[in-house]
Amino acid sequence: MIGVAVVGYGYWGPNLVRNFADTPGVRLVTVCDLDKNRMAPILTRYPGVAITDDYRSVLADPTVDAVAIATPVHTHFKLAMSALMAGKHVFVEKPIAASIDEAQKLVDEAARRKLVLAVDHTFIHTGAVRKMRELVETRIGEMYYYDSVRVNLGLFQHDVSVIWDLAVHDLSIMDYVIPLRPVAVSATGMSHVPGEPANIAYLNLFFEKNLIAHVHVNWLAPVKVRRTLIGGSRSMIVYDDLEPSEKIKVYDKGITLNGNPQKNGEKIYQALVGYRSGDMWAPHLEVAEALGIELREFVDCIETGARPTADGRAGLRVVQILEAATQSLAGQGRVVELKPTRRVA
Amino acid sequence: MIGVAVVGYGYWGPNLVRNFADTPGVRLVTVCDLDKNRMAPILTRYPGVAITDDYRSVLADPTVDAVAIATPVHTHFKLAMSALMAGKHVFVEKPIAASIDEAQKLVDEAARRKLVLAVDHTFIHTGAVRKMRELVETRIGEMYYYDSVRVNLGLFQHDVSVIWDLAVHDLSIMDYVIPLRPVAVSATGMSHVPGEPANIAYLNLFFEKNLIAHVHVNWLAPVKVRRTLIGGSRSMIVYDDLEPSEKIKVYDKGITLNGNPQKNGEKIYQALVGYRSGDMWAPHLEVAEALGIELREFVDCIETGARPTADGRAGLRVVQILEAATQSLAGQGRVVELKPTRRVA
Amino acid sequence: MIGVAVVGYGYWGPNLVRNFADTPGVRLVTVCDLDKNRMAPILTRYPGVAITDDYRSVLADPTVDAVAIATPVHTHFKLAMSALMAGKHVFVEKPIAASIDEAQKLVDEAARRKLVLAVDHTFIHTGAVRKMRELVETRIGEMYYYDSVRVNLGLFQHDVSVIWDLAVHDLSIMDYVIPLRPVAVSATGMSHVPGEPANIAYLNLFFEKNLIAHVHVNWLAPVKVRRTLIGGSRSMIVYDDLEPSEKIKVYDKGITLNGNPQKNGEKIYQALVGYRSGDMWAPHLEVAEALGIELREFVDCIETGARPTADGRAGLRVVQILEAATQSLAGQGRVVELKPTRRVA
Amino acid sequence: MIGVAVVGYGYWGPNLVRNFADTPGVRLVTVCDLDKNRMAPILTRYPGVAITDDYRSVLADPTVDAVAIATPVHTHFKLAMSALMAGKHVFVEKPIAASIDEAQKLVDEAARRKLVLAVDHTFIHTGAVRKMRELVETRIGEMYYYDSVRVNLGLFQHDVSVIWDLAVHDLSIMDYVIPLRPVAVSATGMSHVPGEPANIAYLNLFFEKNLIAHVHVNWLAPVKVRRTLIGGSRSMIVYDDLEPSEKIKVYDKGITLNGNPQKNGEKIYQALVGYRSGDMWAPHLEVAEALGIELREFVDCIETGARPTADGRAGLRVVQILEAATQSLAGQGRVVELKPTRRVA
Repeated sequence: MIGVAVVGYGYWGPNLVRNFADTPGVRLVTVCDLDKNRMAPILTRYPGVAITDDYRSVLADPTVDAVAIATPVHTHFKLAMSALMAGKHVFVEKPIAASIDEAQKLVDEAARRKLVLAVDHTFIHTGAVRKMRELVETRIGEMYYYDSVRVNLGLFQHDVSVIWDLAVHDLSIMDYVIPLRPVAVSATGMSHVPGEPANIAYLNLFFEKNLIAHVHVNWLAPVKVRRTLIGGSRSMIVYDDLEPSEKIKVYDKGITLNGNPQKNGEKIYQALVGYRSGDMWAPHLEVAEALGIELREFVDCIETGARPTADGRAGLRVVQILEAATQSLAGQGRVVELKPTRRVA
Repeated sequence: MIGVAVVGYGYWGPNLVRNFADTPGVRLVTVCDLDKNRMAPILTRYPGVAITDDYRSVLADPTVDAVAIATPVHTHFKLAMSALMAGKHVFVEKPIAASIDEAQKLVDEAARRKLVLAVDHTFIHTGAVRKMRELVETRIGEMYYYDSVRVNLGLFQHDVSVIWDLAVHDLSIMDYVIPLRPVAVSATGMSHVPGEPANIAYLNLFFEKNLIAHVHVNWLAPVKVRRTLIGGSRSMIVYDDLEPSEKIKVYDKGITLNGNPQKNGEKIYQALVGYRSGDMWAPHLEVAEALGIELREFVDCIETGARPTADGRAGLRVVQILEAATQSLAGQGRVVELKPTRRVA
Repeated sequence: MIGVAVVGYGYWGPNLVRNFADTPGVRLVTVCDLDKNRMAPILTRYPGVAITDDYRSVLADPTVDAVAIATPVHTHFKLAMSALMAGKHVFVEKPIAASIDEAQKLVDEAARRKLVLAVDHTFIHTGAVRKMRELVETRIGEMYYYDSVRVNLGLFQHDVSVIWDLAVHDLSIMDYVIPLRPVAVSATGMSHVPGEPANIAYLNLFFEKNLIAHVHVNWLAPVKVRRTLIGGSRSMIVYDDLEPSEKIKVYDKGITLNGNPQKNGEKIYQALVGYRSGDMWAPHLEVAEALGIELREFVDCIETGARPTADGRAGLRVVQILEAATQSLAGQGRVVELKPTRRVA
Repeated sequence: MIGVAVVGYGYWGPNLVRNFADTPGVRLVTVCDLDKNRMAPILTRYPGVAITDDYRSVLADPTVDAVAIATPVHTHFKLAMSALMAGKHVFVEKPIAASIDEAQKLVDEAARRKLVLAVDHTFIHTGAVRKMRELVETRIGEMYYYDSVRVNLGLFQHDVSVIWDLAVHDLSIMDYVIPLRPVAVSATGMSHVPGEPANIAYLNLFFEKNLIAHVHVNWLAPVKVRRTLIGGSRSMIVYDDLEPSEKIKVYDKGITLNGNPQKNGEKIYQALVGYRSGDMWAPHLEVAEALGIELREFVDCIETGARPTADGRAGLRVVQILEAATQSLAGQGRVVELKPTRRVA
C-alpha cells in the first residue's frame, strides 16, 4: 500500500484526488493546499483523507510515500525538491519545472536518491496517442514531418506564454511519439494584450535528419482545433482530438520515388514522383481515462523500481524546448540549439 | 473591341481562352504555343481564332492590343517584357516573374509606356476573398493575426518550391486583404525528394504593428485543407475554401481588455482579460467565376486607363516576399527584411 | 422554502439531487430508492439529506412539499398519483406515464387538487430549443416541415421501444416548438432482436395544414446523429445538437412563388418557383444547464401558482403520440388519429 | 463499330454525347432534338456528327445500331418503343418509363427482339456504390436496415414529384445493392406549392425478412445531404456521396446477441444485448466517370449479347416502386404491395 499526498487543490488537484482514490494499492493520506476552504468537500467525500495547509507536515509524515504536485509552475521546483529530499517519490504537473536548470536538478536528485520522479504528460497515456506511437513505429516508414495545431479562445494566462500552456502538450506528445530528438528550435509569436506574454506562437523543431516539426498554438482563435498531421514515407496520420471516436486516421497515401532518373524535362520528373492513394483506416482506441492509467503506472514504478514513461528526463527534455522556444521568440525566430540532456552517472 | 492573344496553352491557357471568348468587348485574335498539336481543339471550338507557334508574329500583329501569358514562371519576364516593348498591354500568370529584379523591370516598363500590366491573382476576384476584405475593413477592428493553411497531396513541382506554387495564393490574398505591408519575412521548410525544392514550408510575415501572419503550405499532406483564420479586436473570421457554400464565417468573439488595472494577483488579471462570445454569421457570397470577373476588369482598364486591382506592383510585392522567403528558408528561418517597393515617378 | 423529495436514484436521479441541491428556495429533504446501497454517497455529499426505501414515509412527511420521480416508466403513474393524492406537487421523468389513460388521470388529479404537475421534457429548457421556438415564431414564416434524426449505437431497452426512449425527446421538442397540434400519426419500424421491441422506427405526424413532421430514431446506427431540419416559407433552420457551439443555424434560403401564372410550359413554371439564397446565421445560445432552469421553474410554479412550460397536459400530448405511434407501428404504418386532449373544467 | 444516335440534347444529352464520343468501338452518328439551335455546338466540336430534328430519319438510318434517349420522362416509352420496333438497341434515362405498364411493354419488346435495353442508373456504376454492393455481400452479415437521405434546395420539377426525381436514385442503388426484393411500399409527403407535385417525401420499403428500408427526399432543404446508412449483423456502412474521397466508411460496430437467456430482469437483458465497437475503414474507391463505364458496358452488351447491369427489368422494378409509392402517398401512407415482375418466356 503506497501512501500518497496531493499538493495543490485548484484546477487539476481534484482530478488527482479522485483518481488516486480509485487506484488499487494506494492509500490517499492527505491533501495540502494553502486555502483550506476549497478543500472542504474532501472531508465529506473522502472521509479517511486528512487536509492540511502545512506542507512540512506532509513531508514529515512517514506514511506518505509519494507526493503529487499540482500547483503553479513557478512553485514546482521548490515543492518537488523538498519532497525528494524528504525521501518521497514525486509526481509533478507539466511542465516539470520553470527552467532547464530546475528540471535538471530534480532529475539529478531523484537519480541520486533512487526515487521515482514522474511528470504528468497526460496525453501520452490516452488511447489515441499510444496508438499513434505504435503506428509511427510500424506503419508510416520514415517520418517526414509532424505538424500540430492547438488553438481556441481562452484561457489567457498571465504568468506564462501560450507556449508553456498549450505547446507543452504537443511537445510532450512529440517526445513520446517521435523516435528522434530535436537538435534546435525556433519560435515566433506575439502578444495582443499589452504587458502580457505571447498569446499566439509558432514553433519549429529541427532534427538531424530531414524531419521537420511545427506547432501552432493560439489562445485567440474563433474555433477550437486540435489536429496533428504526420507524414511518412509509407503512410500518413491525422490525429484529431475533437473527433468523438475516430481520433486517429491512417491514410495509405503518399509519394513514390522511382529511382534517380536523369532530369532533362518535366516528363522525366513526373516519372520521378508518383502518388499513391489507398484505404483510410481509423483503428479502435481504448477509452480508459488517461490519468487513471498514468497514476497506476506511477504506483507500479514505486513498487517495482521501473521507470515511468514520462520520467523526470522526459520532463526535462520538454522544458529544454520550452526554454529555447521562449528565447527564440524573444529573438524573432532566431534558431536556438538544444544541448543533449546530461546523462546521470 | 480589344484584340487579345493568349500565349501558352498548357494547364491554365484553356481557361483564359474560354473566358476571353466570353468577355464582351474582346476579340480573341490568336493563341500561341510551342506545341501546335495541343492547340488543335481551338480550331473547331473557336473557328475565328488563329493559332501559331511564332510569338514574334503575335507581337507584330497590329490587331493584338493585349497579350495574356500562361507559360512557365521562368519565361514570364522575357515574354512580358517583349510584349510591353511591342506596345501591348499584358496580363501574366502568377507569380508575375521569377525575381524581384524582373518584376521591377516589368513594372517600370509598363509605367513608362502607360500600358496596363496585370497579374493573375485569381483568388482576389472570388466572392469569398472580396467579402473577407470588406469584413476586414468594417467588422474585425484591429487585425491581430492572419493564419493560413494550404495543404494537400501533390502536385510536386520540380522547378519551384511549394512556396512559389502554393503560398503565392496566400500572399496574393494577404496583399489584397491586409491593409498593412509586411516589413520582414522568415521561412522554414524541407524537401523530402532528394535534389528537389522544398515540399513543405512555413512562412512568418512581420509587420510594424503587433500583427503576425503565418502560412503553412505542404504538397505531402494526407488531407486537403484550405483554411484561413483572422483574429481581430472586434471579431474573427474563418475562411474555408472547401466549404461548398458557407466559405466565410464571422465570429462575434474575442477578448475584452478592461482598462489597465494594477496587476497584483490572478483575480485582477482575470478581470483584465474578458471573453466575448456572440453570434456567428456566414454572409451570402457571389458565385461568379473569378477569372471572368478578372478579365473583364483587365479589359476595362485598357479602355479607361484605370489600374487593375492586381497590377504589376501587386505582382512585385508578392514576388518580393517569395524571394525573401526562399532566402530565409535556405538560412533556416533567418529573418529577411522587405524593402519598400520603389515608387515610379 | 420548498421541501423536495427525489424518488429513484438510478441513472437520472443523481442529476435531480445535484440540481435541487443547487436550487435556491429548495430544501432537499429526502431521497428514496428501493436499493439503499446505491444511495450511500448521498450521506457524505449532502449531509442534511435523509435516505429511505419507504415511499410511504416520504408521502407522510409534512415537510415534503414536492416529489420528483425518476423511476422506470411503468411505475410513474402509481408513484405520481399517490403523491398527488397526498397533496404533493409532482415532477415526473418523461414520458409522464405509460399510457394516455394514466397520463389523463394524473392531469385531472393535479387540476382537481390545484397542484403543480410537471414533466421533465429537459430539452425544451436548453438554449438551443428555446432559440428555435423563438425563430419559429419570428423568422421562418409558415412552417412547411419538421424533420428530425436521432440515431446512435445503444442503449437497447427491453421494456419500451426506441420510440418511447428516443422519439419522446423529439415529440416533446416539437410540442414546444411547433405552434400547431398534430391530428394523426403513423409509424413503421422493426426489431432486430427476437422478442424485443422495435430498435428502429420512423414516425410521420400529420397536421391540418400542409405541414408534415417526421422522426427517425435508431439504436443501431454506426454514427451518432442529432439533427433537425425545419423548412419555412421565409427561412429554414438546422438544429444539430452535436455541434459544440453553433447548434442552431438559420438559413435565409427558400423558394419564392411568383403569383399564379398560367402553366403552359416549363418556362412558365420556372418563373413560378424561384430560389432565394442568402446569409446563414448561428445565434449565440445560452449555455446554462437545462435541468437547473427547469427545476427553478418548477419551484417558481409551486410558489406562484403559475403553470410550468411542460405541464401535465404537455406530458399527456406526448404520450398520446407515443401510444398512437406504437399502435401504428404494429399495423405497418396505419394512420392513427389523435383525439384532442380533454379540457379540464 | 457500333453506330449510336443520341436523342434529346437538354440537360443530360451533352454528357451522353461527350461520353459516347470517347467510347472505343462507338461511332456517334447523329444527335436529335426538337430544338436545332441548342445543338449548334455539336457541329464544331464533333465535326463528323450529324444533327437532326427528325426522329424518324434516325430510326430509318441503317448505320444507327443503338439509340440513347435523354428526353422528358413522359416521352420515354414512345421513343424507346419505336426504336425497338425499328430494331435498335436502346439506352434510356431513368426512370425507364412513366408507368409499370409502359416499362413492362419495353421489357417484353426488347426480349422478343433480342435487343439490348438498358436504363441509365448512373450511380450503380460509381466506385462508391460498386464497393458498397461488394461490402454488403462480404462484410455486413445479415442486412438489418437501409436508410437514405437525399435532400437539397431545388430544382423543383412540375411534371413529376420529388419521388420520381430524387428517390429514383436511391431505388436504383437499392435495387443493385440489396440482395432481396421489396414486397410492399408506403410513402408520405407533401407539396408546398399549390397545384404542384410533392416536394418532400418519405418512403418505406418492406421485405419478407426483418429488413426495413427508408428514403427521405426533399427539394426544400437548407443543406445538401446525400447519406445512406446500412446496418448489418456484422458491420455497418455509411455512404456519404458529398465526401470528396472517403465516400464509403465501414464500421466494425454492432450488437451481439448472447444466446437466448431467460429474461427475468434487466441484468439478464443487458447480458442479452452486447455492443461491439471496432475499427472504421474507408476503402479506396475507383474514380472513373460512372457514365463512361456504363456506356462501355452498354456497347459490350450489344457486341456480346450479355445483359447490362441495369437492364430493362431493373428499370421496371424501380418504376414499380415509384408507381406504388405515388399511390401510397395519395393515400396518406397506405401500404401498397409490389407484385413480382412477370418473367419473360
